[in-house]
Amino acid sequence: MKVLVLNVGSSSVKFVLIETSVEAIDNENEQKLGRGLVDKIGIANATVKFTAPGKAPYVSTPPVWDHAAAIKQVITVITDPEHGVIKDPSEIDAVGHRIVHGGEYFAQSVVIDDNVAEKITECFELAPLHNPHNLKGYQLMKEFMPYVPHVAVFDTSFHQTMPRHAFLYALPYSTYQKYKVRRYGFHGTSHRYMVYSLEKHFAKKSRCDFKAITVHLGNGCSITAIDKGNSVDTSMGFTPLEGLIMGTRCGDIDPALVLYLMAQEEISLNEMNTMMNKYSGLAGLSGFSNDVRELSEEMMKGNERAELALRAFAYRVRKYIGSYMAALDGADYIAFTGGIGENSVLVREMVMENLDRLGIVFDRERNANVPSGGGEISAEGSPVRVFAIPTDEELVIARDTVRCIAASKNKPCP
Amino acid sequence: MKVLVLNVGSSSVKFVLIETSVEAIDNENEQKLGRGLVDKIGIANATVKFTAPGKAPYVSTPPVWDHAAAIKQVITVITDPEHGVIKDPSEIDAVGHRIVHGGEYFAQSVVIDDNVAEKITECFELAPLHNPHNLKGYQLMKEFMPYVPHVAVFDTSFHQTMPRHAFLYALPYSTYQKYKVRRYGFHGTSHRYMVYSLEKHFAKKSRCDFKAITVHLGNGCSITAIDKGNSVDTSMGFTPLEGLIMGTRCGDIDPALVLYLMAQEEISLNEMNTMMNKYSGLAGLSGFSNDVRELSEEMMKGNERAELALRAFAYRVRKYIGSYMAALDGADYIAFTGGIGENSVLVREMVMENLDRLGIVFDRERNANVPSGGGEISAEGSPVRVFAIPTDEELVIARDTVRCIAASKNKPCP
Repeated sequence: MKVLVLNVGSSSVKFVLIETSVEAIDNENEQKLGRGLVDKIGIANATVKFTAPGKAPYVSTPPVWDHAAAIKQVITVITDPEHGVIKDPSEIDAVGHRIVHGGEYFAQSVVIDDNVAEKITECFELAPLHNPHNLKGYQLMKEFMPYVPHVAVFDTSFHQTMPRHAFLYALPYSTYQKYKVRRYGFHGTSHRYMVYSLEKHFAKKSRCDFKAITVHLGNGCSITAIDKGNSVDTSMGFTPLEGLIMGTRCGDIDPALVLYLMAQEEISLNEMNTMMNKYSGLAGLSGFSNDVRELSEEMMKGNERAELALRAFAYRVRKYIGSYMAALDGADYIAFTGGIGENSVLVREMVMENLDRLGIVFDRERNANVPSGGGEISAEGSPVRVFAIPTDEELVIARDTVRCIAASKNKPCP
Repeated sequence: MKVLVLNVGSSSVKFVLIETSVEAIDNENEQKLGRGLVDKIGIANATVKFTAPGKAPYVSTPPVWDHAAAIKQVITVITDPEHGVIKDPSEIDAVGHRIVHGGEYFAQSVVIDDNVAEKITECFELAPLHNPHNLKGYQLMKEFMPYVPHVAVFDTSFHQTMPRHAFLYALPYSTYQKYKVRRYGFHGTSHRYMVYSLEKHFAKKSRCDFKAITVHLGNGCSITAIDKGNSVDTSMGFTPLEGLIMGTRCGDIDPALVLYLMAQEEISLNEMNTMMNKYSGLAGLSGFSNDVRELSEEMMKGNERAELALRAFAYRVRKYIGSYMAALDGADYIAFTGGIGENSVLVREMVMENLDRLGIVFDRERNANVPSGGGEISAEGSPVRVFAIPTDEELVIARDTVRCIAASKNKPCP
């Protein structure tokens, strides 16, 4: 079956078409037929890109003034006679939608019906920049494909297994009752994929038999403590701002600083939010870049602020790893992923070196030569084994889509 | 020599008179001649208390409308013919002042002169609820004792050894340049006293030869990573709100929550500050108490919210211990102190049990039977040794006072 994986943001639509089935999942021989991006929706210079194996890449700059136009572009491009990969939208058997926030409603992926759509709407307030667009994507795509199943795969659902003492903040309890204030966590599909990869390829051991710490370092960064395959703690919280230092996000700070800086700078809630989300993190510390590659190059040239930014970034990851080792009473595996986690030899080294007393024997050589499919970066015999593993969030969404459909078919008729 | 240790807050003055000397410090035979408290300054029912060994306790309720009146009460009570311990203020040889914030100016205690007083004033903005009162105490006491040395002992100075990647937040760097926004850390005298106690009595090893994590759990709670006797990281930050969960303070939360709750509740910066400082922490989570003893009793009776509050509290401490083990690449010693750290068998158990894979072998029996002078709570042979040790911040202030004076006397004349 062909599953279209859709990730609809405020100004972009990312999509991948995957040929898959329950058997293909079991054999890991799913085929990515093509992937594309509609970018800068609502802006004059919108672009549509699509690449499929064996075909010339497609790039165009049509007017794309809203999400409806963007979804039409997705259909147009995948059915394009020259660049596309199918003849007719009817060839698509299911759509998997990335939905950022499932609140406390969804601990699993689910076939979308009116009730599910309503609950996604109820979570708008928890993810005002994401959920409305995610749902809009579903509604628009549903018009084109009303008869195929649409599945919601949430960033938050994997973390619904956290215990209360890990997910509640020490704020007045009424904030949880009135506003659902709690730690939700994000990047669930990526952290889940790490569990899968460890189980299947790297640890080669049932998830029931290990504890792991998964470290997603990309545009956003988060880290998760995993026991028996379940998330028991994660660094992102009520929003994706908390936790690790990110490209432009501050992560953890003294909460009193939010008030102090608003008073000193005489800025609004929105402006403060922008400062913490857009002008902080690596960009804020270095003063010139949120890009780990650029910062690494500058650091090698002796730029102190670049070094400071990278050291603070790595130190935060290191501390979280320690804190989750304590939460889990020791981890068997640590898995780095995401653009930075998969590719930055320097960051992994800064995070992992000199942790021998915690059972982590780092191997510089291995770390500098990770194969493209992922590999170990700890030394032979290291009590805690550490890996760098490429993530694949679209694959997780496609797999959940297939499985949700299979499960719903097995349900007895009402 | 007689040193008066003074801790002046917004509505109270705590004081201790200590008979000490360089030799007495070396031999640990300093004498606490008496200790007192002027409480509820500026409120109708102010109280003055003083207790001295071998004397009947002194309690009175005179009008104490301002700090000047409070300082007069201090002099009155220590020279009281029946309850006091000296005949005349001239018997006092030096005054040690607790000053909360030394900013980046002071990495050590220092004899106060006009220049020092000015720098303490410059730090008013960093500790508006503390430094002005601390300095006022100095100015008032100076009027009574103009010819004896007054020494400033800062809560922050011990932490001035933190490296930049540990003390800087990932906010725009300009916030550090413009507003001195950084992690300062507090409770320095208590954490230092733990280093001293470990070195002298518990580890019996030079501080240069061990790494330690010191855990101060009292009204406020903080934890410090110590390498070769130096603070290399600590949980309190720009203010004493950050880090661990405390009686009524939230500690770490998603910084975006500050903005979210202000918007939802339509409250001001001040009100939000009050929520996080006064209505959060154990009190916020449990909904009824900030007192670990009361919560422990209620938990034993089956109160779920009491259990939740204590579990969240202990879990946060546990995670910080792990994070500092990673920061230090392993710790040799962990020292619990402060009212909760010294006395709560339950909290220590919740924090420390099941950390064997991190090298901590907890001993329930020892933990339940710590002698009054402190003792080990880890098992014989535990790779990381854990202690509960009573703190003594006044003693640290008195010692610094003696040493600062000795050092200043040894200076060559200009």
